[in-house]
Amino acid sequence: MAAAVALGAAARGTTAPNPNVGCLVIAPDGAILGRGATRPGGRPHAEAVALAEAGERAQGASLVTTLEPCNHRSHRGPTCTDLILQSGVAHVVAAIEDPDRRTSGEGLHRLRGAGISVESGIGAAEARESMAGWLTRMALGRPRVTLKLALSIDGKIALPSGESKWITGEDARAHVHLERAHTDMILVGRGTLLADRPRLDVRLPGLEERSPRRALLSRGEPVEGWEMLASPEDVFRLHDVNDLLVEGGSATATAFLAADLVDRILLYRAPIIIGEGRQSVGYIGLDAIGDAHGRWEPRDGRRLGIDRLEVYERVRQPGPASLDFARD
Amino acid sequence: MAAAVALGAAARGTTAPNPNVGCLVIAPDGAILGRGATRPGGRPHAEAVALAEAGERAQGASLVTTLEPCNHRSHRGPTCTDLILQSGVAHVVAAIEDPDRRTSGEGLHRLRGAGISVESGIGAAEARESMAGWLTRMALGRPRVTLKLALSIDGKIALPSGESKWITGEDARAHVHLERAHTDMILVGRGTLLADRPRLDVRLPGLEERSPRRALLSRGEPVEGWEMLASPEDVFRLHDVNDLLVEGGSATATAFLAADLVDRILLYRAPIIIGEGRQSVGYIGLDAIGDAHGRWEPRDGRRLGIDRLEVYERVRQPGPASLDFARD
Repeated sequence: MAAAVALGAAARGTTAPNPNVGCLVIAPDGAILGRGATRPGGRPHAEAVALAEAGERAQGASLVTTLEPCNHRSHRGPTCTDLILQSGVAHVVAAIEDPDRRTSGEGLHRLRGAGISVESGIGAAEARESMAGWLTRMALGRPRVTLKLALSIDGKIALPSGESKWITGEDARAHVHLERAHTDMILVGRGTLLADRPRLDVRLPGLEERSPRRALLSRGEPVEGWEMLASPEDVFRLHDVNDLLVEGGSATATAFLAADLVDRILLYRAPIIIGEGRQSVGYIGLDAIGDAHGRWEPRDGRRLGIDRLEVYERVRQPGPASLDFARD
Repeated sequence: MAAAVALGAAARGTTAPNPNVGCLVIAPDGAILGRGATRPGGRPHAEAVALAEAGERAQGASLVTTLEPCNHRSHRGPTCTDLILQSGVAHVVAAIEDPDRRTSGEGLHRLRGAGISVESGIGAAEARESMAGWLTRMALGRPRVTLKLALSIDGKIALPSGESKWITGEDARAHVHLERAHTDMILVGRGTLLADRPRLDVRLPGLEERSPRRALLSRGEPVEGWEMLASPEDVFRLHDVNDLLVEGGSATATAFLAADLVDRILLYRAPIIIGEGRQSVGYIGLDAIGDAHGRWEPRDGRRLGIDRLEVYERVRQPGPASLDFARD
């Protein structure tokens, strides 16, 4: 399952509105007969790709997938459950069930009914992590929102003049580009657009083609090449975005935090003290320190060159199970 | 040597103006015959304590010490070099040489001349770390200054109202009390004194007696029970302080950072976002981001309950080797 999760994770940011599933077809002797991830734009599904590679050899083999195979008809092709039934696969392992209420357990149920041995729940945590964007959209009806911050020790994003190049070093900036390659859309505020004219593209060898869509948080005039969000709440209109990366600046970060529309923070911390400078976050509605606690959980932390990456995730109560704009 | 360093480290904050040395006397069969650390106030020295415990059994034994034994006369007792020569110890291991120019190598030289086998440099890095306060005073003529900060993710120390209780949790606060037990003096600004009336004592079982001297950074009227520093530069007058802990608030932290008189930062980072609030550090003279780099090195980082401790040390070029106000 770890290999299937890795296949799916590599496709994150390219498969919306569909989930970035990973799938392997494995022979009884352990040989890998087929491997697949959801293709760019969401079709074909990972299972279809892996089964196509395996061909006739899928007969009697095992299929390992990070998400329950789909079981709802689409004009874009047969369901994966049908493909699996046709393939002669003997054994199916799925990490998590499809939260899409049109499938939710029905795919695995049909496979079992056809005499295929089915396991589910294997590697569920890793699979959830790899598809967190899509799962957030299924649960909350909007993309997973990741806020990127590049801060000094004392939490500043720039000098009073606005100078912010460079707070973090090359390794941290390369990590940002990798994250961009795995997001569907990047958003900045108009201030950042005017000050920095950011390209927001992916400058990593082999990943240049994965530069995501660009969006602007602004109520003002449209800007060519940029999609417009009038407010953070407009993320609920982004039905074809699994992962949204909010890159700045302070006003934009503050607006998303104040609206409680940040699910994850990628914080690149440089070992420098700026002192007087621009703060990273403004008023977010907090009136007592006690209310600030219990909202953010540190999930990861590691050195990136001279800097340190801190990953925080919003602690949320489980939301509604499934909504209606699901994969296709 | 690790055990000797641990003995010395436990005495940090109690031995000024002398170094917090640790010492063991070990029999040829490995049995520990005596152990010692510099006693409160700086006398007796660690070697004298360990040799006194070993007594006659020191004959032919090894003496392991974190600092070269002293070799300069004092009205407060015989030199440790004399004590070792009298003891019949056959072997001496010292982690580092005494930077005090009255001894600097002379102690080990005399021991060698008397036919004792001598090794030095073993465990030097750990020994330096354990006596960093005293060594800073020897090298720079002032205490090692540690700045303690308790910050949110976004670098704030309080709400706009000044409310700061509690940004960090119990484990982080216990760690602060442990650090207080290992410092000779704590300093706050007048604003912190008036706002918080801090006790600055050590509230840890068994260490209550180790509450350090209290100092105020202020040009105003003296306050009973508090020593006064008119400016950060007054640390050069503190000849009987090895470790100074600066606990706040923002104006005090800013003054010490602007004067480049901070050697170490203990940063307790809480997983909360405050947003609009009081900044940790104000203008420190920085006019270009590039100038902020290369000054601070992350030296340690670990979880303390829900918080995280980050330790930074000031990167400094080696200073003058030794000054004249040394141990006694």
